[in-house]
Amino acid sequence: MDNFTFHNPTRIHFGRGQIAAIANEIPADAKVLLLAGGGSIKANGVYDQVIAALGERTVHEHWGVEANPDFDTLLPAVELCRQESVDWVLAVGGGSVLDGAKLICAAVPYAGDPWQILLDNGASVKSALPLGTVLTLPATGSEANGASVISRRAIKEKLHFISPSVYPVFSVLDPATTLSLPERQVANGIGDAFCHVIEQYLTYPAHAAVQDQFAESVLRVLIAEGPKTLADRNDYDARANLVWAATCALNGLVGAGVPQDWATHTIGHEITALHGIDHARTLAIVLPSLLSAQKDTKRAKLLQYAERVWGITTGTEDERVAGAIAQTREFYESIGIPTRFAAYEVAAEVAPQVAQRLAARGLTGIGEHGDLTPERIEAILRDAA
Amino acid sequence: MDNFTFHNPTRIHFGRGQIAAIANEIPADAKVLLLAGGGSIKANGVYDQVIAALGERTVHEHWGVEANPDFDTLLPAVELCRQESVDWVLAVGGGSVLDGAKLICAAVPYAGDPWQILLDNGASVKSALPLGTVLTLPATGSEANGASVISRRAIKEKLHFISPSVYPVFSVLDPATTLSLPERQVANGIGDAFCHVIEQYLTYPAHAAVQDQFAESVLRVLIAEGPKTLADRNDYDARANLVWAATCALNGLVGAGVPQDWATHTIGHEITALHGIDHARTLAIVLPSLLSAQKDTKRAKLLQYAERVWGITTGTEDERVAGAIAQTREFYESIGIPTRFAAYEVAAEVAPQVAQRLAARGLTGIGEHGDLTPERIEAILRDAA
Repeated sequence: MDNFTFHNPTRIHFGRGQIAAIANEIPADAKVLLLAGGGSIKANGVYDQVIAALGERTVHEHWGVEANPDFDTLLPAVELCRQESVDWVLAVGGGSVLDGAKLICAAVPYAGDPWQILLDNGASVKSALPLGTVLTLPATGSEANGASVISRRAIKEKLHFISPSVYPVFSVLDPATTLSLPERQVANGIGDAFCHVIEQYLTYPAHAAVQDQFAESVLRVLIAEGPKTLADRNDYDARANLVWAATCALNGLVGAGVPQDWATHTIGHEITALHGIDHARTLAIVLPSLLSAQKDTKRAKLLQYAERVWGITTGTEDERVAGAIAQTREFYESIGIPTRFAAYEVAAEVAPQVAQRLAARGLTGIGEHGDLTPERIEAILRDAA
Repeated sequence: MDNFTFHNPTRIHFGRGQIAAIANEIPADAKVLLLAGGGSIKANGVYDQVIAALGERTVHEHWGVEANPDFDTLLPAVELCRQESVDWVLAVGGGSVLDGAKLICAAVPYAGDPWQILLDNGASVKSALPLGTVLTLPATGSEANGASVISRRAIKEKLHFISPSVYPVFSVLDPATTLSLPERQVANGIGDAFCHVIEQYLTYPAHAAVQDQFAESVLRVLIAEGPKTLADRNDYDARANLVWAATCALNGLVGAGVPQDWATHTIGHEITALHGIDHARTLAIVLPSLLSAQKDTKRAKLLQYAERVWGITTGTEDERVAGAIAQTREFYESIGIPTRFAAYEVAAEVAPQVAQRLAARGLTGIGEHGDLTPERIEAILRDAA
């Protein structure tokens, strides 16, 4: 096991009716920015519950945070916070709203151009406003980590930053508030969480028995509970298991003390930045093809994954590896997420385009061994045609 | 899944050489109480590493915290902290030293008789000195939770308290510092951690898929890695897996949103208080017998445990349940922990004695259904003869 430091200070309030817990989390004299996306939280009653919990506190609202939150959507909220001396941010929505809120929290006390926070991956963040979240879409894990992904459509960019300053102080996870989500968003959430675990697990053995088994646990839960919650949106238990699995997929536990990959996300972000394809769908396109390309260096873990996650115990090693990759592709397809570019009407030049963009960023070797060169990434994307 | 609040703010520094991290954790102007047990940390070099990391800080030392830390051993340290205006406590040792440190941290600013903290299970604790720990014995999970168990031999008592105020701010877990432990203490640690998971897992189904699989993960790791680390004390990887498994057994994750039992611990504490038997050994005596007595109300989870932890998939339900309980007993025996009173030379009256003590405490029904009466507990203990 590699050395690690693990620290996740977020307080989780999980279950029915937990939005009321906000009343005890945010100081009574706080000036609060309420950040939200579209109007769905008004339609499903979440907004009313949040306002009731906030009571007499001063609340400023900023709406319109979109999927893949845009830098230019968030900047006016930073200005609002400064003008109104806002001292708490409450994000109500999915991972995009939460990620956007993290940038706002870091940007308000930040001296320079906030885009620098993305350019230096959070290294220049020294403080941030305290953040609370009410998560309405299980997917990104943003409710219990210090990471944020921000897009900037004006310059076709999608970058991320990480800082211990932007861990939410608390997060409310009420699975009942997610039951009204469109099926496509639930499927995307399942696919995103699945890939988060794979990126931290499917590398090479590191004698990390607990982390491996926790990773396999979350994967098996997503495989079992994902289709259940898609089939019956009123199954609270299945949805609750999905919500908690998505949090545990990226709260730091699975990845503590082990090598990590993240090449699928790095490549996927470029595809979203260029073509606007849903984040989870870009992962579904890249992942099976990438696993095939890396099947030699990932061999030992692919065999373990085949056996423990998919129950594949017969056949030659090559057959078991191929079987695990095929099951991975089939899982995404089974929840309604196509795994080939053909389904998305993206031009063939996406492969060289992405490779060139990564090379231009200096990312000439990604993945756990740094062996995914722009040339190999182009081949992976051509293989996903 | 039941509603839950999960909050574990402890920062974990895991791995070789991590004692040096203390230098960045405790303020440079802190007045530190260093709490320790016997001299083993001087023999194995841990003490020297700690003193080097503490550098120029003012350090007062209090030695002699014994297994099952005694209230009367700790009181002088409380006085020392008050006299010297100590504002940080650093516990260096196993769970007993850590538990003792938690009582000291809570007692220093406490207005009344500190024994009251145990009598009201921590409810009266409003604040505590900040605590850091260097864990040298994987077992209790005290390094990452807010619980503490304190004995008071003068009145043959053993009680616990729980408070969010006494979560360690940080804990250093360097598996290498545990390699010199006597085999008996390592075995006790494995057995203790195993029972912690069982108490939170082996109750009745609550649609908590992640928690169940995390529990089964920790149990399987203890079963696989425990014997490995006992067989070869120089196997760093096996020891590291044991250390992290023991922490994850009682850091709140396995037990979030699920029913819990804790009857085995409640009964075991009485046996230690009366007869001084090692904590883990009392659990090994009680657990198999208690599972047999509760096999009807625990039936569904016993069948799940049989299959997922022990791989028992054939036979009638009764046979599988019996098989899982037999494997549990055999596991304790296999790591050198006898599971029957006969091995401990305890008089037969232990059964009614324990039952009477629990009744006197008003504990007339314990376990997840509150159905373990003093009469049934006496029968369980007679069955463990």
